[in-house]
Amino acid sequence: MPVVVPALSVPTAGAPFERTTIERRDVRGHDVRIDIAYAGICHSDIHQARAEWGAGLFPMVPGHEIAGVVSEVGSAVTRYAVGDRVGVGCFVDSCRECENCLAGEEQFCLRGMVATYNGKFYDGERTYGGYSTQIVVDEAYTLRIPEGLELDVAAPLLCAGITTYSPLRHHGVGPGTRVAIVGMGGLGHMAVQIAHAMGADVTVLSQSLSKQEDGLRLGADHYFATSEKATFRELRRSFDLIISTVSADLDLDAYLGLLRLDGAFVFVGLPEKPQDFRVFSLTGARRSLAGSNIGGIAETQEMLDFCAEHGIGSVVETISADEVGDAYERVVASKVRYRFVIDTATI
Amino acid sequence: MPVVVPALSVPTAGAPFERTTIERRDVRGHDVRIDIAYAGICHSDIHQARAEWGAGLFPMVPGHEIAGVVSEVGSAVTRYAVGDRVGVGCFVDSCRECENCLAGEEQFCLRGMVATYNGKFYDGERTYGGYSTQIVVDEAYTLRIPEGLELDVAAPLLCAGITTYSPLRHHGVGPGTRVAIVGMGGLGHMAVQIAHAMGADVTVLSQSLSKQEDGLRLGADHYFATSEKATFRELRRSFDLIISTVSADLDLDAYLGLLRLDGAFVFVGLPEKPQDFRVFSLTGARRSLAGSNIGGIAETQEMLDFCAEHGIGSVVETISADEVGDAYERVVASKVRYRFVIDTATI
Repeated sequence: MPVVVPALSVPTAGAPFERTTIERRDVRGHDVRIDIAYAGICHSDIHQARAEWGAGLFPMVPGHEIAGVVSEVGSAVTRYAVGDRVGVGCFVDSCRECENCLAGEEQFCLRGMVATYNGKFYDGERTYGGYSTQIVVDEAYTLRIPEGLELDVAAPLLCAGITTYSPLRHHGVGPGTRVAIVGMGGLGHMAVQIAHAMGADVTVLSQSLSKQEDGLRLGADHYFATSEKATFRELRRSFDLIISTVSADLDLDAYLGLLRLDGAFVFVGLPEKPQDFRVFSLTGARRSLAGSNIGGIAETQEMLDFCAEHGIGSVVETISADEVGDAYERVVASKVRYRFVIDTATI
Repeated sequence: MPVVVPALSVPTAGAPFERTTIERRDVRGHDVRIDIAYAGICHSDIHQARAEWGAGLFPMVPGHEIAGVVSEVGSAVTRYAVGDRVGVGCFVDSCRECENCLAGEEQFCLRGMVATYNGKFYDGERTYGGYSTQIVVDEAYTLRIPEGLELDVAAPLLCAGITTYSPLRHHGVGPGTRVAIVGMGGLGHMAVQIAHAMGADVTVLSQSLSKQEDGLRLGADHYFATSEKATFRELRRSFDLIISTVSADLDLDAYLGLLRLDGAFVFVGLPEKPQDFRVFSLTGARRSLAGSNIGGIAETQEMLDFCAEHGIGSVVETISADEVGDAYERVVASKVRYRFVIDTATI
């Protein structure tokens, strides 16, 4: 029998949050039931709750940065036991058969992965996310939160952490690599910590120097304001990798000029409008513009283990259910340092 | 004493070619004097002779696809002897000290490589290219043309060959790689042959099917017309690598959709206007847009050896000095199959 649990829901696109209840399915053979402790607020929650990325499925319960504790396991579960500390990220299933799933890149499932919320399982069942007190997820799409990582600072790792870890790993960042992080927000503050822990020389490129102190404390070696034209002269041909975490339109030619031979500019932030660039900006030093999108399950576990090993967590501000609406406004205004997490006991 | 030699020169931007004479420097310690047999006509010759890429230095003697025979060597020359068959490509010197030169990527010299024509040596001496009967070049910037490669079909390899070989090698093309070549012209017909010889599954994407027979004969496995919308549906997520040899504006989102996970779209053709794309086209399958630009000296030698080993040459139409003006018109109109080479004995 499905279980009825409290949740925070947006009834229609852009409407305020309401306290409601949703059904969570009965635990099947491979499922774990998770008592959610914290759910992070990702900027993409806002885009989806406001139907800015397409129509969306309403009522919607957002949340794909989920941390909690296992409270029940199905009969066939082998990886988790009641009491285990676990997390759930941006997807809760994938086809498991396509070449990308088989390669451990489930986020690029060719059938389309099943999003943790604002999605449907392959049987048509709607998905509801982490702004709730409980979720039931197949153990294969559940992550272990290692000892030493508190659940509140771990929750945002499930999206913001893996979104930045994956391109840093994919592009071979290590000691000696010169990495620039564009934007010092929810994604940026994770990228700085992870790149630093990987041994890179880390530069933050932020609109202003208002968060410089935080950036340097989190591991940045250098911090520059992109509002200063001198920044682009001074840093010309400086970086092996630039990770852009912002969704604003950028002067890509100016940023490409900051890359050395074979350097890559990687988007993890998602500008909505088309972006343009001059082809000479690429060919002049064999540069590339690339994209990255969260990570696979195995890589997400690797990221969590890496963060635990290096004492990395998100810098969070814990809020109650009543504060989510205000929190959304502050995220849009870039007035959060650096991630909100909802204490789900208040839902 | 400098030697005065015949050459084909453009006196001012866009003017017709004239027969003239230029001075070639005396052979210094590390120099070789080359009796030029053939000079290929590259589309970039036309852009520069018409000052379409900036003002240009006039009078201009174009030509950076040079094949000939050594007729004199300097006292310190160790690599070449009189009678050796050699080539010269797009540059004749570089700083030899920067990190890119030291890495064998002289084409990306941070001081700026010395272009074979329309350039200046670091001492201010003007450079004149291959539309001439003779050239004097440092042996370090001279390539050996292996046995089995005729000089006429070898000349275009010095630009068109290395321009396409380098990105194919750089992106790890080999057996099993699915490669698409956009454009079936001077660059495209080389890319098809080289990618095929590397063992790839090769598809040509050309505006029409007018050159399909040639493409298949040169090694393409498949040939599609990009004027057909069905092409983009049918080939969705098909390729690991797309090499674009055209300078036309392209619908990059449509082409990016043809790439599989981690696929790359590489520009070697140079559209003049900014190009735009949607960031989702990259992030949706971790794709990239990249650039490539000729190759280093060692890689150019590797390419020549590879072409000799696999019996690859350019498909050429040999012309006399009097036909160069008409040939330019035909290149602009894409009416050459596939490269003009000037028989320099007619200059």
